Formats: sequence, structure tokens, C-alpha cells
Amino acid sequence: MRLSRFFLPVLKETPADAQIVSHRLMLRAGMIRQEAAGIYAWLPLGLRVLKKIEAIVREEMDRAGAIELLMPTIQSAELWRESGRYDDYGKEMLRIEDRHKREMLFGPTNEEMVTDIFRASVRSYRDLPLNLYHIQWKFRDEVRPRFGVMRGREFLMKDAYSFDIDEAGARRAYQKMFVSYLRTFARMGLKSIPMRADTGPIGGDLSHEFIILAETGESQVFCDKALVDMEPPGADLDYEADLTPLIEARTALYAATEEMHDAAAFDALPEDRRLAARGIEVGHIFYFGTKYSKPMNAKVTAPDGTDVPVEMGSYGIGVSRLLGAIIEASHDEAGIIWPEPVAPFDVGLINLKVDDQATSALAEKLLAELEGRGRDVLYDDTGERAGAKFAAMDLIGLPHQLIIGPKGAAKGEVEVKNRRTGERQTLSPDAALQMLAMA
Amino acid sequence: MRLSRFFLPVLKETPADAQIVSHRLMLRAGMIRQEAAGIYAWLPLGLRVLKKIEAIVREEMDRAGAIELLMPTIQSAELWRESGRYDDYGKEMLRIEDRHKREMLFGPTNEEMVTDIFRASVRSYRDLPLNLYHIQWKFRDEVRPRFGVMRGREFLMKDAYSFDIDEAGARRAYQKMFVSYLRTFARMGLKSIPMRADTGPIGGDLSHEFIILAETGESQVFCDKALVDMEPPGADLDYEADLTPLIEARTALYAATEEMHDAAAFDALPEDRRLAARGIEVGHIFYFGTKYSKPMNAKVTAPDGTDVPVEMGSYGIGVSRLLGAIIEASHDEAGIIWPEPVAPFDVGLINLKVDDQATSALAEKLLAELEGRGRDVLYDDTGERAGAKFAAMDLIGLPHQLIIGPKGAAKGEVEVKNRRTGERQTLSPDAALQMLAMA
Repeated sequence: MRLSRFFLPVLKETPADAQIVSHRLMLRAGMIRQEAAGIYAWLPLGLRVLKKIEAIVREEMDRAGAIELLMPTIQSAELWRESGRYDDYGKEMLRIEDRHKREMLFGPTNEEMVTDIFRASVRSYRDLPLNLYHIQWKFRDEVRPRFGVMRGREFLMKDAYSFDIDEAGARRAYQKMFVSYLRTFARMGLKSIPMRADTGPIGGDLSHEFIILAETGESQVFCDKALVDMEPPGADLDYEADLTPLIEARTALYAATEEMHDAAAFDALPEDRRLAARGIEVGHIFYFGTKYSKPMNAKVTAPDGTDVPVEMGSYGIGVSRLLGAIIEASHDEAGIIWPEPVAPFDVGLINLKVDDQATSALAEKLLAELEGRGRDVLYDDTGERAGAKFAAMDLIGLPHQLIIGPKGAAKGEVEVKNRRTGERQTLSPDAALQMLAMA
Repeated sequence: MRLSRFFLPVLKETPADAQIVSHRLMLRAGMIRQEAAGIYAWLPLGLRVLKKIEAIVREEMDRAGAIELLMPTIQSAELWRESGRYDDYGKEMLRIEDRHKREMLFGPTNEEMVTDIFRASVRSYRDLPLNLYHIQWKFRDEVRPRFGVMRGREFLMKDAYSFDIDEAGARRAYQKMFVSYLRTFARMGLKSIPMRADTGPIGGDLSHEFIILAETGESQVFCDKALVDMEPPGADLDYEADLTPLIEARTALYAATEEMHDAAAFDALPEDRRLAARGIEVGHIFYFGTKYSKPMNAKVTAPDGTDVPVEMGSYGIGVSRLLGAIIEASHDEAGIIWPEPVAPFDVGLINLKVDDQATSALAEKLLAELEGRGRDVLYDDTGERAGAKFAAMDLIGLPHQLIIGPKGAAKGEVEVKNRRTGERQTLSPDAALQMLAMA
């Protein structure tokens, strides 16, 4: 992609009203623009990251055997009356009246609707287990939206819903999502720590939050350091195997958010394993049994011929929130440092003198070669001065920079910079190509 | 994908309230489920088609040089007051009040918001031309939603917005979208006919609708038969070349919807070239100059140093509506016939006797081989009887069926059926594989 044809409105000034670093950097890097309180447009650079994160979430859900559908944003109030949550949900629910005065709402979550879809067509235990998920925009009318996409009103969430014939089945579904989440966040370059959590308005008796550590995190968390050092499950993970050992290895270790914190248990840890840190919630899973299936009459026939309410759980990942969380966990003074799997482009190609023919010819050649090898390249072909180009490229945080100037072009040399380490290497164009095509 | 693990709630009965064939078939094939009037959940099979259509639209927009972003669904009423459309839009606009009593709305289109994004960052003619698009859910509160996804209230639209320094530039932008649309619909197996159109609430003085022909189409259209026979532009189309000849070859021929119909001009055509038919609108493009940029003060500096309001156009494709339109244009008594590029799976693999070891071993082998070659396969591994399997596979309309039964498995024979032609061939498993891997 040529920067001259892209739309990347980078800001020179730091926006005054952005309180946290990810919000500031997303605004400055031209990733988002606020259109109303807590409501953002995703500009092209931001959208590219959002899609990469979404793709990783989708791949890992599919790998775990969940099936994707897509529920609408607007729901009927009737459904929520069936579960009893219409009145309970309070002012965070955006309530809407249509032209025929029917009560509608912009979905903040989808337990009711997915239960309605389930009960309309599934009749027998033979069709279970089933896990249905979607990745859809939600709305929660926060009283004080802030922190950019970390606590917006309109946000993208992946929510999955499992259906099983009995509690044992539902717990297996829960376990699958538990390990799938460890993999999902690891693939984005994040270390996530599952912490036993309060179930809140979703209900149920078993719940874990997935927290990533970041100095600027929103909440205080306490855990055993050993959790931070554990490796996530590999791509060869067999979801049909018994996942209990994988999970118990983690849940046996102390980890809690402030609300669930047990100071005595934490203090009983050896001092060098006590980690009190700041964290950001990026996922939340719930087992809630028949909380929705009973009032909504979602029953299936069991092997013994009786009809039983289906056992359910729900599993959320804050897809748009993850952009903020990743930036909170990965940035420096100069800007964002994207982990490679979620970077908007793999390589930033900087042409230091676009009106020099040899420089531009070399840049065009390397652009074509890198793109031909499947790398996403942002080519700064603008007439900006070098300093501004370097600053913008550091700000937007692409993992690799390939810098071509007239002196180097004449000598057959280019420079490659690693954004994370800051390391710079002077290489022949072929060696640079070799390195970046593999990176 | 194994059908036993998929979620495909096929209906045996024809839903009574569905008036048109695409609506009936989408409900019966388990593609959608109505959640409120004109509001549908996209079940897994329907979502797969929606995504394939979306991907083709995106590829062709990118090819034409448009840049993708994503605007939110909820907008502030303030923006629409600036353009003067807040009061004009009437009851089709879903108006919302948030918890702080601020007036919001669920966007029916995005001229105002994209103009706001533009004016916030673009200052100079040097940053033009620019074409920004997004693919996002919209809401129009139709008084009587009907015809399934063809006239729903919540629907997925691709809308692009072009920005140019002068009218000549804006007309080039319009031309690019015009030819891009011909390609886009052709890639979905559709023959689209551009027809001069009324501009309606978008405004402006130049507009074309893109209509596909279908016996069950919603509106009466009139055109020169020669238009139907014209080939769409190829993938090698150069968008920087002069597109005028390509466009004039089409606009010189008579084509009009009922509202714009000129009976005298139509009757002047030789009789064998007069085509009066039913059509479905799948795209609509508009040039409207400064209709939004003037009231919203979206100005850029021209080469002569003066500030001028930017010249704009907008370009819509009804992404979710296209599913209905394609089915209207491509079905038979037995069900849907998907054009290959938008089919939810490439191949339906039918195992006629899942408890026969040789049959199932052969089916599993062919499944693995086809998937290994990048084909999307829906494998019917359920215990249903053969007749139900055949009927369901015809109903959901995958282009190719691969049928494996115990007699054939013993003899080393399988059957391949082409859904469109109905042609059946008995082949060796290797020959079938060869054929389907290429198809």
C-alpha cells in the first residue's frame, strides 16, 4: 500500500482529552476517530488491526469446534422479558422504540437470542454438544465512556454460547473455551492469566476472567508468578482429550482480581512468587447451567426420553478492546510496538528522497518483491521530510522498517530497523529482502 | 465440515409467511431466522454466503483504489442537523435517545459521518482523489418489512464515498465505481445492467442503479437486449485508463426502471432488441457534488490557493440483499443453485450408509483429500435416510455433490452430481477427486 494513496491522518499533537496511553496513541496514529462519546470510527490503519485480531479469534474458535453465525444488533424487548433481564439490565441497555412503538434494544449480549435460535430447532441430545458464536457490534450505554476503545459504548465482541445435555458436558465445553482462550491471546503476543471471577449480570456459579498484565492496566490483580511463566497450549492441542490437567495446572495457582482477592491466601505464597500487578480484562467465560434455558423453555430430549432444559455457558472476548489492551502492554515513548501477528502491515518501507530516481526505483523494486512474497508493506512514497517519516513510522509501530536513501541506493545499501529492539542493520537490498520476507 | 457437528436447521415445511422464493428458500435451507420484523439472524450456512459476497465486494473495491474503514452504527443527530437531513429523513430513520437524553440514530447511510471524518483531516487537493468505503450494518425502519433479506430493516451495505477537487475528478471517481460494479456482480455469477436512476434522498444530478434480471424481480425494467449480452470488464482492467468508452458503450443503449421509463424511446428500438423484464436493484451510485460538503464546510485548498468545497459521490451495494437477489436469479423446484464463487461450500459429500465401514472409510479419505486441496466440503455424516440427504443437499444448492454408497464403495465407484445441470457421472474415486479438486 502506498501511503500517498492511503488514508492515515496522523496527529502531531497529543489529544488533550485522552487519559490513557493506548487512547492517545490510537488517536495520534490515525487509527480511530471519536464520532460521539464512546463511539469511534475505525480508520483504515485501525481497521486492519481489528481484522487481524478478529481473524485470530475466529480461527481459534473454529479450531475448538465452535460454529459461527451472526445475530443482529437490534433485538426485541420480548425476548429479554422471557429471561427476566429486560428490567434488571438497567440504564446500560440502549432501549429503542421503532416506528410502530414496539420496544427494541441494541444488544449488549446475546444469551436470550441464541437460546431462542437453539430452542427453535434443536430437539435431541444427539445434536449436542453445540457451541455457537458470533463476532458482532454490541452497545452498552456506559454512564461515563472513557479510555478510548477500552471502555467504549459501541464495541466489537466475540461471544460464544455452549449447549450441553448435562452439567458434565457443559463443564467440558467450558474447559475447551478456557484452553482456547489461552491460545487465542498467546497468538496475539499476549500473556493471559485466567482468574476466578464474579459472574455479575450473566449469572451462574463458575466464571473466569482472562487478564493481561500491563503497567497501565485498569485493575489491580494478584497472582502466583508461576502462572506468568507457563507456556500456552500448542497448535497440536487435542480438544477431544481430557483438558482437566491443563486447566488444573493453572487454577491450582493463586490468581485473583481485587474483588475476589483473598489476602491471606496470597500472603501464604513464598514472597518471590507473589505478584501484585495491574491488569486488563480481555476475556470472560461463564458456566450458568439452566439460567436461560429454564425460563425460556429450551429443552432437549435426553437419552432416557425425558425432556430436560439444556445446560449452557457463554464466553466473551473483547475484540475491539484488545487493540487498546495490546497497546497498553506494548509501546514505548515513540509510539506503538505491534506484535507481528496483529500488526497492520508487516513492513514500513521509507523512501527518503522520492524525487531521486535511483532511490525510488530501488524502493519500487523492493516493494514489489516483498508484496510478491505475501508481506503487507506500507510504502511511504510521500514528499515529507525524513524526520517526520521516521517519527510517523515509529508512532504507528510496524514491526520492521526498511529505509532507502540516495546515498545507500548509490552504494547498494539499505537499512533495516527492528521497531521493538531499535536495532538497525545496513544490508544489501537482497539480504534485506531475504530477512524481511522471512520475518 | 461434518454436518453432524454443523448447525444446519433445515425446514421440511414451507414457511407460510414468506411471499417470495428467495425468502422461502433461505428459511427452509436454514440460512436465516427472523428475530423481529425485518431483522434476521444469519445462521451458519447463510453467514458463509454473506462472507463470500462481502469478500468479493471488498476485493473489487480495493482493486478500484478505494480504502476501507469502518464507521459505527450509532450516529449523533447533530451531524445530520448540519446537512439538514435529520428532519427530512422521516420515519425510516431509527431515532434513539441515550441515557443522557442525547439524540442519536442508527445510521441508514453515512454521507454525513464520512464528510465529518474527511473535513477533520484532509486540507489539500494533494491528498485527493480519495475514496473511502465501509461494509457495515445499517438500519432503515421500513413501514412494512418483507421479502426476507431483500427488504429487511437491519441490512449489510457496502457504501463508498469519493472526494475530488473538481467535477471532472468526481466524474472519474464515478466512472471507476461504475465499471467496478460491473465486475463485482459478474464475479458473483450475475449479469448486472446499469440503468439511469432517480437520485432520491441522497441527492445529486447523476445516478445509476445496477439491476439484475430475475423473473421474480421486484420491479419492472426496460432495456436494450444488447446490454444483456455485453461482457463485463476483465481482471486486467486499468482503472487509471480512460474509462469513458467502456461506460458510453453501455449508457448509449436504452435501459430504465419504471420510474425513469420513456416509452417512446423504448419503442423506437427494433422489436427484437426490446426487453421488458423484472429486475432487482443490487447497487446504486450517485454523484452529488457539494450537497454535503457545502453545508458541512468540508473544504480543501485548490492548486490556485483558494479553498473550495470538496466534490463528492456515494456508491452503495446491498451486500445482504444480494443473497436474496442471487437466489431469485438462480434456483429451481428443488432449491437454491449457488454460483460457484458464492457457494457456502464447494462440494456436498453424501455418505449413504455411515455404519458401513468401507463406505465411511472412503468418504473420510475423499473428505481429507478435497479439504487438503483447499475445497470447502460439507460432509453429510449423519444417520438420515438417503432421500432426506439428497433433498437437503439439493435444497442448500452446493454446486457439486459427491455421493458414496456401500455398493459403489465395494466396486470402487462414486457418483458426482452437478447441481445446476443435474448431470450425474459414475467415476472412480480418483477421477472424482481430480474433477472436484479442479471445479
